[in-house]
Amino acid sequence: MKLADLAPRIGATVRGNGATDVIRVRGIEEAGPGDLTFVSNPRYLARLATTRATAVIVAADVECALPALITSNPYLAFARAVGVLHESPPPPAGVHPSAQVDSSAVLGEGVHVGALAVVGPRVRLGARTVIHPHVTLYADVVTGDDCVLHSGAQVREGSRLGQRVVVQNGAVIGADGFGFAKDENGRYHKIPQVGVVVIEDDVEIGALTAVDRAALGETRIGRGTKLDNLVQIGHSVTVGEDTVIAGQTGIAGSTKIGSRVVLAGQVGVIGHLEVGDEVIVTAQTGVGHSLEKGSVVSGSPSLDNRSWLRSIAVFARLPELQRRVRELERALRSDRNPS
Amino acid sequence: MKLADLAPRIGATVRGNGATDVIRVRGIEEAGPGDLTFVSNPRYLARLATTRATAVIVAADVECALPALITSNPYLAFARAVGVLHESPPPPAGVHPSAQVDSSAVLGEGVHVGALAVVGPRVRLGARTVIHPHVTLYADVVTGDDCVLHSGAQVREGSRLGQRVVVQNGAVIGADGFGFAKDENGRYHKIPQVGVVVIEDDVEIGALTAVDRAALGETRIGRGTKLDNLVQIGHSVTVGEDTVIAGQTGIAGSTKIGSRVVLAGQVGVIGHLEVGDEVIVTAQTGVGHSLEKGSVVSGSPSLDNRSWLRSIAVFARLPELQRRVRELERALRSDRNPS
Amino acid sequence: MKLADLAPRIGATVRGNGATDVIRVRGIEEAGPGDLTFVSNPRYLARLATTRATAVIVAADVECALPALITSNPYLAFARAVGVLHESPPPPAGVHPSAQVDSSAVLGEGVHVGALAVVGPRVRLGARTVIHPHVTLYADVVTGDDCVLHSGAQVREGSRLGQRVVVQNGAVIGADGFGFAKDENGRYHKIPQVGVVVIEDDVEIGALTAVDRAALGETRIGRGTKLDNLVQIGHSVTVGEDTVIAGQTGIAGSTKIGSRVVLAGQVGVIGHLEVGDEVIVTAQTGVGHSLEKGSVVSGSPSLDNRSWLRSIAVFARLPELQRRVRELERALRSDRNPS
Repeated sequence: MKLADLAPRIGATVRGNGATDVIRVRGIEEAGPGDLTFVSNPRYLARLATTRATAVIVAADVECALPALITSNPYLAFARAVGVLHESPPPPAGVHPSAQVDSSAVLGEGVHVGALAVVGPRVRLGARTVIHPHVTLYADVVTGDDCVLHSGAQVREGSRLGQRVVVQNGAVIGADGFGFAKDENGRYHKIPQVGVVVIEDDVEIGALTAVDRAALGETRIGRGTKLDNLVQIGHSVTVGEDTVIAGQTGIAGSTKIGSRVVLAGQVGVIGHLEVGDEVIVTAQTGVGHSLEKGSVVSGSPSLDNRSWLRSIAVFARLPELQRRVRELERALRSDRNPS
Repeated sequence: MKLADLAPRIGATVRGNGATDVIRVRGIEEAGPGDLTFVSNPRYLARLATTRATAVIVAADVECALPALITSNPYLAFARAVGVLHESPPPPAGVHPSAQVDSSAVLGEGVHVGALAVVGPRVRLGARTVIHPHVTLYADVVTGDDCVLHSGAQVREGSRLGQRVVVQNGAVIGADGFGFAKDENGRYHKIPQVGVVVIEDDVEIGALTAVDRAALGETRIGRGTKLDNLVQIGHSVTVGEDTVIAGQTGIAGSTKIGSRVVLAGQVGVIGHLEVGDEVIVTAQTGVGHSLEKGSVVSGSPSLDNRSWLRSIAVFARLPELQRRVRELERALRSDRNPS
Repeated sequence: MKLADLAPRIGATVRGNGATDVIRVRGIEEAGPGDLTFVSNPRYLARLATTRATAVIVAADVECALPALITSNPYLAFARAVGVLHESPPPPAGVHPSAQVDSSAVLGEGVHVGALAVVGPRVRLGARTVIHPHVTLYADVVTGDDCVLHSGAQVREGSRLGQRVVVQNGAVIGADGFGFAKDENGRYHKIPQVGVVVIEDDVEIGALTAVDRAALGETRIGRGTKLDNLVQIGHSVTVGEDTVIAGQTGIAGSTKIGSRVVLAGQVGVIGHLEVGDEVIVTAQTGVGHSLEKGSVVSGSPSLDNRSWLRSIAVFARLPELQRRVRELERALRSDRNPS
């Protein structure tokens, strides 16, 4: 594709020869002739001198000899360029003969249901939604238009998905929350989990991630939020909009996570908390109390990030600190009892 | 349903008008006309004054104007009330024509096998057990009566499940344990995992939880124990009765966990340990040594919970402690060398 | 099987009566008549006096009254003995009539495709590879010879597996990496993940483990590497050869892990790092910077293991250290202001 044709599709303008042809997108080190690459991180600017790419996406203030696509957000333009140059056609509309679709299900225009998928009673699928093989949709599941559910995803009864929701392989939406009541003999009795899960528009759910249904009411993932793989979302949790939750993070029941929050990998958040908007939680942090809007926290249990950084620096020198205390004690003793 | 009819089914007695009708259970804040709610946590007692619920489950000593169901264990009665008021009929007995059931399998009375499930050779399913779509039961799996296996659950050869076991979606029971022997070149050779998994009565296994088969012998989950989502149980582990293991916790091979233990979320327990009965392990703790009955531990590596709380409090002030040591050193120097 | 027949198959020689018959392998405490057991850990040598096993695998310098199989690596010989004595025949060659195999797929000699498996367009399966029920292979997946893919495994488009790769139940290979570009309104846009996953020979992938496809290029798991359950491998990660990664560990995108590395359970490694060969990372460690060959690290954030052990020992006594500083301050004050 010529740069002049690609530019308007990715929100960029051409600098240099717009007739330059690119066929795919590659990283700056791997790129060769015919490849389009990009630089968004200033750290990698130096590599522009040596890349073998044919063209590059950069910000306006970056000088380079290559033909370039100029944009204020090279990373976003890169994302779009991948979409354009590596576009793969969606699976064709239709239901595979081996799929088991209940006669009461309603399928929108252009829906694809793959081999051996199960679509339960009263399920409604929006237009162009793609159901890959081995997906199970229990009764009364609803999806919006243009959703993609990858193979092995399991969606339990009554779950509601918005528009353009992507569910990666093996994810589980709407399994029973972890709720039990203890009797006088210390035995646990299941609290039937009769709530639902609501996934809003433009959410992505990672592979092998579990979003539990609510005990009563609903568990809700807000518009535009992205969950990575192996994440655990407990029952009755609500997550706001445009929040990012990285791999293996877990959020216990009834906690409310705000919008534009970033939870890094392997974070744990206990139940019944409120985590404000724009909070940032670094990797492996354990959040044990509610957090105000804009907090940045680290550690287990979590502290303000700057305090934690200072404490952790001293932690690494604790044996030295202990030795200094011992020497002070010795010095004081010898001052008091000069021999 | 009238309170007078509901009361005996949930172990409660009526206070006020027994003819009061309730149709569902809701949380105290969400409840409206026709709803039954409950208060078990004293923190929420104040909300009784403002709830719009029609009736409430409370302990005998709680005063309130609403018609009430009185019980010594409101939370347990709540669990039962959900079961009664939100009861959904079990799937009908029978085998879906698309399921693949081996001719040597033995299905008890009232068993349901859903669409596209696979039931292997010599499998035996107890009465009324429900197998949802896309479950795979390898050869020689046995379940007791009234089990429920949700879609996408995978149960490997020879696994034995007791009565009333619930397996949530995507759980894996009996995959090979992680066992390899290293040769003189540093290459690993698989130790065939030829043991089994035994799940006793009334256990619940969470979504996407893995319980590995033993190398030799068995991995065992004791009666009434509840595992949350994304839990890892290593090969040859044994877990006692009425133990609760929260999400994303992992137990390495051959460790023995006692009865009535509570492991909070994201806990790790290394292999070949013994964790005594009634131990409590708080979230994200790393257990690296055996624990006596009744221990309460926290931290990574784990300490007695009270010691850990004290240490963690000092940790948060380590920069200040370091500064005080520096000042002491300065003071002592100036005392010794007055200028 | 007679010891004399078994010995050459497991790389051992007989000491005592080679006509001794053994029928299975058991642990030293559980073993009884007819059982072969082993001792590789010197801790368990004392149990040789009381075991009821019929024969034992030991090193040459271990004395015992029982007939023995002598080898320099008893653990490896044990692994092989389990393989010989507990051998189960592979599933028969052939495609189950309920499996959905695309007409363009190419199946090697002796391949087994189980019930309700899905084999997509242009898939190529090496000789004797076993595909269990409910496996999905998307288009263009390639496997070598003698692979085993357990039920519920999902392998996405274009993934390439080497010889003798074992994939446990529910594992996901090639799901989209977690890549999004933020626009000026703080909304995230998906970066299409158009790379692949390459799994080299003799790798094992644990149950419910996710290996994400690369954004561009490839994610690669090196020859002989073993991944436990519920592990997360981010996009564009490369792992070297003969590396072991224990349960619930996560590696973020683009990180390079060396060969012969050991990552214990619940470890986290952030993205874009290099972890050298032979590095050892202990359980629950958080690796936030690159590590040189042979490093041994612990803690979150990670420190050199010996430094961490010393710091953690002081951490457990922090309240005492704080008290000592307080007493020093008091003593100094009283020295300066004697009343």
